[in-house]
Amino acid sequence: MALTRAKLRELRTLGQKKARIEQGKFLIEGLRMLQEAVESDAAIIEVVHTEAFGEDQAGKSLLHKLGTKTRNIVKVTARELGAISDTEHAQGIVAVARQRLFTVESVLQGTNGTSVIVALDAVSDPGNLGSMIRTCDWFGVHGILLGRNSVELHNPKVVRATMGGLFHLSVVEDVDLLLAVSKAKALGYRVYVTDAGGETHFDRVQYAQRALIIFGNEAWGVSDQLKQLADERVAIRRYGAAESLNVGVACGIVLSSLHRLFE
Amino acid sequence: MALTRAKLRELRTLGQKKARIEQGKFLIEGLRMLQEAVESDAAIIEVVHTEAFGEDQAGKSLLHKLGTKTRNIVKVTARELGAISDTEHAQGIVAVARQRLFTVESVLQGTNGTSVIVALDAVSDPGNLGSMIRTCDWFGVHGILLGRNSVELHNPKVVRATMGGLFHLSVVEDVDLLLAVSKAKALGYRVYVTDAGGETHFDRVQYAQRALIIFGNEAWGVSDQLKQLADERVAIRRYGAAESLNVGVACGIVLSSLHRLFE
Repeated sequence: MALTRAKLRELRTLGQKKARIEQGKFLIEGLRMLQEAVESDAAIIEVVHTEAFGEDQAGKSLLHKLGTKTRNIVKVTARELGAISDTEHAQGIVAVARQRLFTVESVLQGTNGTSVIVALDAVSDPGNLGSMIRTCDWFGVHGILLGRNSVELHNPKVVRATMGGLFHLSVVEDVDLLLAVSKAKALGYRVYVTDAGGETHFDRVQYAQRALIIFGNEAWGVSDQLKQLADERVAIRRYGAAESLNVGVACGIVLSSLHRLFE
Repeated sequence: MALTRAKLRELRTLGQKKARIEQGKFLIEGLRMLQEAVESDAAIIEVVHTEAFGEDQAGKSLLHKLGTKTRNIVKVTARELGAISDTEHAQGIVAVARQRLFTVESVLQGTNGTSVIVALDAVSDPGNLGSMIRTCDWFGVHGILLGRNSVELHNPKVVRATMGGLFHLSVVEDVDLLLAVSKAKALGYRVYVTDAGGETHFDRVQYAQRALIIFGNEAWGVSDQLKQLADERVAIRRYGAAESLNVGVACGIVLSSLHRLFE
């Protein structure tokens, strides 16, 4: 099965945000990310790969597993793959997957017991967003609400930086966070916000069984309106000269205290 | 004073690692980084800026302060500045500074009381290295030893991501870490290394007054030889599905426990 020019063009358009949103699809690139995807419930629609990719054991094994998900697996030239891929050095394989859709309600419903939700308010750097999803995935967060002003979830740089987290976690995009946080409070969530002037040091927080933790924008943090909805403001004390911490690092530090809830 | 073609060419070469190392100089770009630099003891050699940059209050004030550091301040066109700058949208000002040189010995000498040193083994991503220096700068680390296989410290992406940390901290580059760690131990440092299988959870570490904390490469962590020199292996427990944490995030989590040493 060869790749038609029309199909190649179609795949290339998924490098664009507009096409991703219109079609509800996105690209997954490289061996490692596709290994994560194939072990999850990701809906893979089609796969293109180079001849060389299928020649080693890891590639062959992945293609075999992908074959149980879709029949649309097509060999392409390295040049064709390079035209589809976002990365400089395409790793021999790209797949098209359907974006998974979750609702705020289903995420907030959570589990019967402990439920930890993270809300991200206007995170603008793809690497930061991806890294925060990866961190949430490490610390056992149950779901993520992504506010309206955040960078697009299915941007290839975000997808890559999640290191598979996107396939493990329920992430709702384009959320009205003021509304969602109000709903969460009505459902019994306690709301925590990171704030340099906060009254609780991060390692002293006693997380509630239902916890919603909000992180904000790289430059201006969490919006004042959201801060006002919080039950507790969490600080990370400074002992040096830096003006601020990277938001992804701050997220890691605050979430690292969750272990006391899970133990 | 106008910019000669030869000078423009000279400044452009500082975009290259080879020239930075040969000349012992590097570029500092943008209002914010130069505000940090001018308040530090950074040796600024020359400055180029656009006409527009000097027109608003913040720009004018910065140029005034820079004038106390160097007489070589030259107006250039936006196009000339764009040719020197590493960023897509040059922010109207670029300076050339002399690289500060520190020795392993001077960094390990530290202060009389508490002395916390971070060693970075083969960190390869510029954003990660910059972010880790920024984090060290937040938590009051006294100095950084950068191993031989790490990305170059004065890479413009690293400089930017430190958010000024490069000007606040003593960072030694191109360090033989095996040798440096042995020296540190002889000087009474206790050595900590991050390791998924470590015996001490990060929030239980009792840091010694002289502490050397090692972080490793994005993919394979700290080298086995270095691990063997460590007195204590520090772990961050996982509660979710992610395979690993970003190294910059892990660094933030481990360093966040330093506050108990400084309190």
